[in-house]
Amino acid sequence: MNESSQIQAGIILGAATRISPYINRTPVITSHTLNRLFESQIFFKCENFQKVGAFKARGATNAVLLLDQQQLSSGVATHSSGNHAQALSWAASLVNSKAYIVMPENSSKIKVAAVRDYGGIITFCEPTLQARESTLASILEKTGAIEIHPYNDERIIAGQATAALELIEEIKNLDIIMAPVGGGGLLSGTSLSAHYFRPEAKVIAAEPEQAADAFRSFTNQKFIPSENPQTIADGLRTSLGSITFPIILRHVHQIVTVNEESIVTAMRLIWERMKIIVEPSAAVPVAALLEKKTNIKGKRVGIILSGGNVDLDELPWRKYE
Amino acid sequence: MNESSQIQAGIILGAATRISPYINRTPVITSHTLNRLFESQIFFKCENFQKVGAFKARGATNAVLLLDQQQLSSGVATHSSGNHAQALSWAASLVNSKAYIVMPENSSKIKVAAVRDYGGIITFCEPTLQARESTLASILEKTGAIEIHPYNDERIIAGQATAALELIEEIKNLDIIMAPVGGGGLLSGTSLSAHYFRPEAKVIAAEPEQAADAFRSFTNQKFIPSENPQTIADGLRTSLGSITFPIILRHVHQIVTVNEESIVTAMRLIWERMKIIVEPSAAVPVAALLEKKTNIKGKRVGIILSGGNVDLDELPWRKYE
Repeated sequence: MNESSQIQAGIILGAATRISPYINRTPVITSHTLNRLFESQIFFKCENFQKVGAFKARGATNAVLLLDQQQLSSGVATHSSGNHAQALSWAASLVNSKAYIVMPENSSKIKVAAVRDYGGIITFCEPTLQARESTLASILEKTGAIEIHPYNDERIIAGQATAALELIEEIKNLDIIMAPVGGGGLLSGTSLSAHYFRPEAKVIAAEPEQAADAFRSFTNQKFIPSENPQTIADGLRTSLGSITFPIILRHVHQIVTVNEESIVTAMRLIWERMKIIVEPSAAVPVAALLEKKTNIKGKRVGIILSGGNVDLDELPWRKYE
Repeated sequence: MNESSQIQAGIILGAATRISPYINRTPVITSHTLNRLFESQIFFKCENFQKVGAFKARGATNAVLLLDQQQLSSGVATHSSGNHAQALSWAASLVNSKAYIVMPENSSKIKVAAVRDYGGIITFCEPTLQARESTLASILEKTGAIEIHPYNDERIIAGQATAALELIEEIKNLDIIMAPVGGGGLLSGTSLSAHYFRPEAKVIAAEPEQAADAFRSFTNQKFIPSENPQTIADGLRTSLGSITFPIILRHVHQIVTVNEESIVTAMRLIWERMKIIVEPSAAVPVAALLEKKTNIKGKRVGIILSGGNVDLDELPWRKYE
């Protein structure tokens, strides 16, 4: 558990200052309908309005801004088919660096196009973890680029922590802070910000049942990864990392799981009643409220809406008609 | 043209004060992507975040708040299958009155459910204008309810004018203000607010080619209604009224038309890049920019996004794949 002690409050505050010229200070919004439905006061931190459409812009920006000129001239690299790929490509372009992105060859066209739009240099590989890692290794060797892991990296965690920091600064006296959990970059950062800046608040994470490695690992106090999990919440298929897990074990109060249908129902509820676009992963904490997996009655609850990148041609509710 | 002179600045300011306890002061948002695309500074007034999901809540609230106790005890009535039906039902419930809503029997389930949710008392009729009017007449006779027309009513126009008023108050030095036009309630109100509170701004309206009665009437200086127009922008199928048309003739600077494909493209652009949900009618001014129907280069442009009520099971871009 020693890793968590390395990210002090000052590190998070430093990340916030560092990235603030580049990222959006996203709005916090409320909904009378959802407050009434859940008999509580909910404050949604809208990272769907963040640069590149997700909180991932925070961590990626923090990471690239911490590199020196020589490192920047070699570029950065990662394997990702999701928001981190876009975020790192975008962040690298801010500092005139290059981003080498390894993507599985079956990545959706829309995600490939988005990474290209942000200037990422894509190398396709077979859609296995092994192929992704070996392809990345050969790129790192060939280019000398710096690997920026999507979540198991303190620079990334400190960056993601700034979303909760802003929420805590803006909304006083939160009783509960909720976030989804995949690899744990957002959740570990959120729990650290709560710990330092709003220790009275409980941190509750929500995770798809079908990718419940964080729930199992948290419950058993032992890392038990998911193997090839299938969930519509595509941002949450990854398992915790060696840095994120100890932070989560120490600073998160509860992890709950939700089923696929609740995720879709929650996503639709947010779209229809709040008129904002969120991706399935972002709806997972609201799904937990729909399933009454945690009691928030009468509480002031901050929820981090993690992102809004969805393929509008592939909306999930059609499957549940 | 004498009617326009009856809605003075003080009437609009009075409406703003009257309705402010009940409606949302909606946010004004910007998008770097759209600013870059259109080489201008665009300020979107988000009436999709308004009560009942559309600017219509403003006019309906203003109208019911101007009724006396005896009138309120009889209730209000209208024929509408759209946002006005929801808005009037909601506004009537605010003052413990009743709203009698005549809806064509082929109205979508989702709209019928929304009106019921807000407490509207629905009477179905055949889907013709004649049936709607005769059914409404018999309800007015039977109940003594007060008819509240969706747009051809000064109380409604003054209410809708408050959206542009708020925009002008919040964003200084606008060069252009854009709104969609259907029956002209929003547009006439917007043009009056511009006239009184930001006379330096040009008011530019956008209308579907396939429901272009306002464009034709404006160009010919003579009211030429549409007959059974078909457009995806369902809020804009109505023709101008005897009160809205003279105001528009006097205070609007330009009306442009857009095709159906541009409306869908504009709607998708807003959803994907701004991560907010707008209905087709709301996207019509942005469609005009995509079609380069008006030159906004280098200008500060306010655009009223009129609403966000869409059936998520019937998204239009599937037709254009």
